[in-house]
Amino acid sequence: MSSAEKVNKGGLPSLLISIADGVIDLGWGHPSEALHPLADVRRAAEFVLGGESVAALQYGAVQGFGPLLESLAGFLSNQPAYGMSVPPDQLFLTSGASQGLDMAATLFTQAGDTVYVEEPTYHLAHGIFRDHRLNVVGVATDAHGMRTDALEDKLTKTESPNPVALYIIPTYQNPTGRVLPENRRRRLVELAEEHDFIVFADEVYQMLHAGAPPPPPLAAFDNTPGGRVVSFGSFSKILSPGLRAGWVQAHPALSARFTGSGFAISGGGVSHFASNIANATIALGLLGENIARLRAAYGDRIRAVDAALREFLPGRCAYATPTGGYFFWLDLGEGVDTEALLPYAQWAGVSFLPGRLFSVDDAPSRCLRISFALYDADGLREGIHRLAQALDAYTADRDDHDD
Amino acid sequence: MSSAEKVNKGGLPSLLISIADGVIDLGWGHPSEALHPLADVRRAAEFVLGGESVAALQYGAVQGFGPLLESLAGFLSNQPAYGMSVPPDQLFLTSGASQGLDMAATLFTQAGDTVYVEEPTYHLAHGIFRDHRLNVVGVATDAHGMRTDALEDKLTKTESPNPVALYIIPTYQNPTGRVLPENRRRRLVELAEEHDFIVFADEVYQMLHAGAPPPPPLAAFDNTPGGRVVSFGSFSKILSPGLRAGWVQAHPALSARFTGSGFAISGGGVSHFASNIANATIALGLLGENIARLRAAYGDRIRAVDAALREFLPGRCAYATPTGGYFFWLDLGEGVDTEALLPYAQWAGVSFLPGRLFSVDDAPSRCLRISFALYDADGLREGIHRLAQALDAYTADRDDHDD
Repeated sequence: MSSAEKVNKGGLPSLLISIADGVIDLGWGHPSEALHPLADVRRAAEFVLGGESVAALQYGAVQGFGPLLESLAGFLSNQPAYGMSVPPDQLFLTSGASQGLDMAATLFTQAGDTVYVEEPTYHLAHGIFRDHRLNVVGVATDAHGMRTDALEDKLTKTESPNPVALYIIPTYQNPTGRVLPENRRRRLVELAEEHDFIVFADEVYQMLHAGAPPPPPLAAFDNTPGGRVVSFGSFSKILSPGLRAGWVQAHPALSARFTGSGFAISGGGVSHFASNIANATIALGLLGENIARLRAAYGDRIRAVDAALREFLPGRCAYATPTGGYFFWLDLGEGVDTEALLPYAQWAGVSFLPGRLFSVDDAPSRCLRISFALYDADGLREGIHRLAQALDAYTADRDDHDD
Repeated sequence: MSSAEKVNKGGLPSLLISIADGVIDLGWGHPSEALHPLADVRRAAEFVLGGESVAALQYGAVQGFGPLLESLAGFLSNQPAYGMSVPPDQLFLTSGASQGLDMAATLFTQAGDTVYVEEPTYHLAHGIFRDHRLNVVGVATDAHGMRTDALEDKLTKTESPNPVALYIIPTYQNPTGRVLPENRRRRLVELAEEHDFIVFADEVYQMLHAGAPPPPPLAAFDNTPGGRVVSFGSFSKILSPGLRAGWVQAHPALSARFTGSGFAISGGGVSHFASNIANATIALGLLGENIARLRAAYGDRIRAVDAALREFLPGRCAYATPTGGYFFWLDLGEGVDTEALLPYAQWAGVSFLPGRLFSVDDAPSRCLRISFALYDADGLREGIHRLAQALDAYTADRDDHDD
């Protein structure tokens, strides 16, 4: 069980996470305590601060800390999950994917514009689009992610305004864990070029493949003359969320928009100190090792969740075992409303995020998302055990009412 | 002389600053190498990372790292420059004043809105307003900062649209170094309430008083029921710009808007790791000592610039000796265009920022800004010596042409 429960006692909270006593909360997509590379970050901080240089404390370069732009470009280019060469001029350093997306919304949209998203999509992206007063429209998905045929229909046949941007999580999607195949990636970029919109590709799980690597990031399919894809990467999922360090990868014409932003020019590098730390983890060979460790740990957990679902919920939920990322998406079938299941889960000492949270149309859902990032195999097994108990109680109550 | 010149050789730059070889560039408002508290930040990092806790690496609380919200509230409440009690619910932790201002622009304005600023004002705020497609209108200033009578005239008598926000640097203004007196602070908040706009108060120099403290920050004058003032503070000027840590101080109804922002809810605390470091510098008693050191150092430099101006430019420039902050604003008098003076300065091995940069109306200016943040007393003296040589050459050329 996570010790996240320990940190919120008394005073203002330190952390985003908060979990009721005794509950196994499978809702949080946050890494377990044991997976935070404390010793690595400590070594990196000593590397950055241990000499005479004060460069980490001064205003940083607007595009981002040069040594990290270069080391990250090299690092990504060598990742099996990238399958492409990433030159430094395609990068801009952010303080995380959410900050990058917020910045992209400022730079590429304005109030009243339409943005297309997957139905279902990452629920917390909504808040960013709402702050920018954007009109959010869902595009149908299937087992392979966004349906590009449905997208094309929407772009050509409906009377609704065409989007200025499309937000998508192509790899190990949040919440479904699905992976968009290469042909759809290619088609998506073609449609963006044809219909004049930018694709905001949230690719923070790209390197967390449990087995074989996924297709390359969406930017690899962007051969358009002016660039159509802005890809958001993050050290949150591969090093440490608290650092607040990430990057944008895009055609130089697009990455230049970030480097030209007023906020970055005024404050200098958006994540200068954190970028110094991240660079040290690459320079010291720690980042690659950490990702390998995470991939192994999450792979084990995927197998544990899979086994527990077969043990405790046989035949009672449909799902595709994810091949990476953070999430299982469970379909509890006809007649189940996962929002109505929540109080039963609370009673059983477990929690999850109901599918409705991820629905652009706020539609009731028979699906739910569980994350395997926060708990180890034992915690996950017990959580799913409790989920089965919750479902039993829910079903019994429902069937009573039906009588 | 600063060693900033050393860091940009080869590869992509690490830092925002870049200075031509041999030039004393009085344009940069960045602290000198010797003023970066490297040992303090190193101790703070050890404090944060030296134990078993991984809390600094996890997603942080949305309002900001709780222990820093509390320690900062206590710290500010005890600062002579604050003269007010700052409760933690008035704070939201940012990654610096520029990021806070960008966020405020997202949350409180939309494309086409009007924002009022001082004429002249901080030139790099323009870029932030431009990114948000705001219409920027200047308000006249005098030796005491923004003229609230001129503001009132603009609000009541002109046909231009009223502002949704007003951006001001009340204390040790950038570029002029001026301080807005208490009665104008009070009047400004009254006008904001009367005419329904929000005041974005950039107060990053507030604690850098060379002698007696300035009037309290603008938030101290905000007794409006719903809040009218959003004050931006920063660790950049009192600890280290590279960390990217700052805060917003505002009426709880306004600070709640920041805490409710989609970007912060998605990514967690905007500056979580850096906030852990900043909190450690308060907990260890280092921040107060550092501010005292900075105040003494900048006080010495103000005297050095003053002496050099009297030595090298007697009777040739008008200025008010600043009582804190980073800047001298020199008026070179009738017939001087400081933009045209720049090539002469380059020839003489010095640089500065011409007044035109700070003008909303892009008006030619006989004023220029020099910063005493980057160079020590000797560097500043030599810089002003060279500035006098540049002015001699410029004047000689100009008088030749006039013949």
